[in-house]
Amino acid sequence: MSLVTSPEFIRRIESIVGSAGLVQDPERMHSYLVDWRNAYTGNAALIVRPANTEQVAAVVRLCHEANVALVPQGGNTGLCGGSIPDATGQQVVLSLTRMTRIREIDPANATITVEAGVILQQLQQAASEAGRLFPLSLGAEGSCTVGGNLATNAGGTAVLRYGNMRELTLGIEVVLPDGRIWNGLRGLRKDNTGYDLKHLFIGSEGTLGIITAAVLKLFPATHSMATAWVALPSPEAAIELISHIRGVCADRLTGFEMMSRQSLEFVLSHVAGCRDPLTSEQPWYALIELRDTISDAPLTELLETCLSHAFEQGLVIDAVIASNDSQAAALWGLREGISEAQNHEGPSLKHDISVPVSQIPAFIERTDKALQARFPGVRIVSYGHIGDGNLHYNISKPVGADDVAFKANELAIMDIIYQKTGEFNGSISAEHGLGQSKPAAAVRFKDPLEIELMRAIKRTLDPTGLMNPGKVFAAEQ
Amino acid sequence: MSLVTSPEFIRRIESIVGSAGLVQDPERMHSYLVDWRNAYTGNAALIVRPANTEQVAAVVRLCHEANVALVPQGGNTGLCGGSIPDATGQQVVLSLTRMTRIREIDPANATITVEAGVILQQLQQAASEAGRLFPLSLGAEGSCTVGGNLATNAGGTAVLRYGNMRELTLGIEVVLPDGRIWNGLRGLRKDNTGYDLKHLFIGSEGTLGIITAAVLKLFPATHSMATAWVALPSPEAAIELISHIRGVCADRLTGFEMMSRQSLEFVLSHVAGCRDPLTSEQPWYALIELRDTISDAPLTELLETCLSHAFEQGLVIDAVIASNDSQAAALWGLREGISEAQNHEGPSLKHDISVPVSQIPAFIERTDKALQARFPGVRIVSYGHIGDGNLHYNISKPVGADDVAFKANELAIMDIIYQKTGEFNGSISAEHGLGQSKPAAAVRFKDPLEIELMRAIKRTLDPTGLMNPGKVFAAEQ
Repeated sequence: MSLVTSPEFIRRIESIVGSAGLVQDPERMHSYLVDWRNAYTGNAALIVRPANTEQVAAVVRLCHEANVALVPQGGNTGLCGGSIPDATGQQVVLSLTRMTRIREIDPANATITVEAGVILQQLQQAASEAGRLFPLSLGAEGSCTVGGNLATNAGGTAVLRYGNMRELTLGIEVVLPDGRIWNGLRGLRKDNTGYDLKHLFIGSEGTLGIITAAVLKLFPATHSMATAWVALPSPEAAIELISHIRGVCADRLTGFEMMSRQSLEFVLSHVAGCRDPLTSEQPWYALIELRDTISDAPLTELLETCLSHAFEQGLVIDAVIASNDSQAAALWGLREGISEAQNHEGPSLKHDISVPVSQIPAFIERTDKALQARFPGVRIVSYGHIGDGNLHYNISKPVGADDVAFKANELAIMDIIYQKTGEFNGSISAEHGLGQSKPAAAVRFKDPLEIELMRAIKRTLDPTGLMNPGKVFAAEQ
Repeated sequence: MSLVTSPEFIRRIESIVGSAGLVQDPERMHSYLVDWRNAYTGNAALIVRPANTEQVAAVVRLCHEANVALVPQGGNTGLCGGSIPDATGQQVVLSLTRMTRIREIDPANATITVEAGVILQQLQQAASEAGRLFPLSLGAEGSCTVGGNLATNAGGTAVLRYGNMRELTLGIEVVLPDGRIWNGLRGLRKDNTGYDLKHLFIGSEGTLGIITAAVLKLFPATHSMATAWVALPSPEAAIELISHIRGVCADRLTGFEMMSRQSLEFVLSHVAGCRDPLTSEQPWYALIELRDTISDAPLTELLETCLSHAFEQGLVIDAVIASNDSQAAALWGLREGISEAQNHEGPSLKHDISVPVSQIPAFIERTDKALQARFPGVRIVSYGHIGDGNLHYNISKPVGADDVAFKANELAIMDIIYQKTGEFNGSISAEHGLGQSKPAAAVRFKDPLEIELMRAIKRTLDPTGLMNPGKVFAAEQ
């Protein structure tokens, strides 16, 4: 019997977290060992669910002493397998989902202090009830946790205006790999007393420690909104359009999502109740949202002014402005339906890349061309947060092609896309992190010196390598 | 003859940077060895002024091999002696002031790529000429450099709206302590491919490497402005007022500076051409600025609405709104004159602290009380960026007191102020960094675990300890 499942080890874990904090039953363990898309499956000795920071610290200390590897887990909604343990059954999954306290709301400081297991949507609601906005917004918000958002530096549709999770964070509390607690829960806008350690842990995917709580920024609630769906001749036009709108509207611009006709067609084919908002087919679309704190701000007029200017410049072919909230929601539905719709067309090879905003058109043109040359007929579903330079550049098989034969090209297709990303000094993972699926690619496409520095940091903070092993870093050669 | 001044070492340095890159003449060296306030004086073997990143790398490599300590220096405008060498004459000052290239402006990506020696004001101008805004703004902007701004994570009056230098930075280029160049010059809004190393170097005051260039964010230029000077009954009222204005105006609020009557009186006494904008004396004041990208935005009306609401609530006693740019400049002059004015009243003991915004009133009340109890009659000049929770809490001697006797209390006064800062979970250096003046205080008032983590990072990235020794870290016990 291995150490990890020895009765003594389990007894000691249970003495820390109680029976409510221990999951050993294989059936109950299952949901912690498989990701929501069924893309990654692992095994574990135990699932441990501490109720507070002190319990997390005690569990980590015990595992540190016993040389047991830990896999921190939040809502388990990641896309790269970062919270799924390996297959050995020797790792312990440490789930933060019982740590759901909102510790403090300080409206005058515009901060909220929450524990790692708070669901993003609950955080949004708590902010809203205090008359404030917590802006992070993404598809999984009903089940992802703050801890996961921090560990992966989550993005989403509001990054354009409010930044990534990193930019929304003032302070964090971390259980270090040896079980000590670093209380960095400061709610300060300015603090220049040494290295800013929080930024090491944010986005480190649980490989340097376990984030147990955070002080997050709140923003003024918005009280007016305008939403438009516009048809564009090209990605170039989209870039010029966003530049124009930002110049005029500045931070009233809270959303700008571009998508290809192919993306829209998949949605129209597969998502119930959707319809094309415009009468003619056009190659590209953008969904544009303005918001203001002032309740009667003339946003529709402002949007009309911007769009009529763009129309005169040939940047916009056609446009519709939502006249009420349900119309706006329907337009967002077209954008949000893409990922699901694509699954109906066979395997979807997903890539989450970013390049400088100005390089989006050239990236699309050259990558499309390279892919079509090598794999004629593949359907390219490109869409995303282009104001952040972030494209979800997903590939579906040619019409009528065999699923298995198509999937066999996965690595070759990825290679073309990542090569092009590199040519534009871009990132092969804009939002989703590295997890267990992309460390090898990161090694190929990142500066070796940067990987070396990352490894040096990892060795310094986690010398025994027990924190989420196999994630972020590829096995050393 | 020591190694550092050996003809062979100097010859090798000169072979890298040329004679134009070497300063050996004591008279010419002087300005690199003393800070602008004459508060810190050091000595150096040489001043080296490389012209580009490759030269910086070669100099650092040579110093690394020769075991020579380096002190990176920008505009030498810091307040904590971070860029002044020690007294031994064995250190080499590496000045970045010849690296003044603006490498690229990418308006569609809203980024500018600049070298470390670019003066902040030149950067602001370059952005402006491209129809964009680079928002960092501080007193020394005519002589401080981008490299120094990055090394110290500079703040200033625009942090309220745009963030510190850290938040304005997308990527950096760094010469590591062994002379290798890390090219992290990415202009990406999203990049989740591992640890975000740039945040380690930003704010590290040259102790981990030398930042040679950066990709910085640009913002839409603003085209309308409204500025008000308001009298307030208390700091509590100021906090309520800023909360109200932000709720209504959101990011139109680009400035909110609070100052005490004592601060204003010093300015009125010592700065030529100043006058009190209001007719009666009040205990506290705020300078409020709104800006908008829209040229005819009704900001004055918006400000009037906010202020009349505040007046009804008893938050504002009196107010004046500038009716043109020169009136606005005169109001800003009152704020900007404080630091200089205070020098006319004898020694000024300066403290740059931050606490959560909501705690500003309690901090002021309790710290004032503690100081007056121990040192009756001291004049407290408190003012600053209270929207960031950042107070410049400066102390002048009692009227008629002896300068030397007063200065003898410097440490005791600092101790009271930093103790109170700690009680509010604040920072003893909000903007100015630690340099050589505050490392010992940081050790006393920061969590020892955090200092330990910082030291571990320092040892990992700079194992020989040759990068700006004696800064940020106190000598180990």
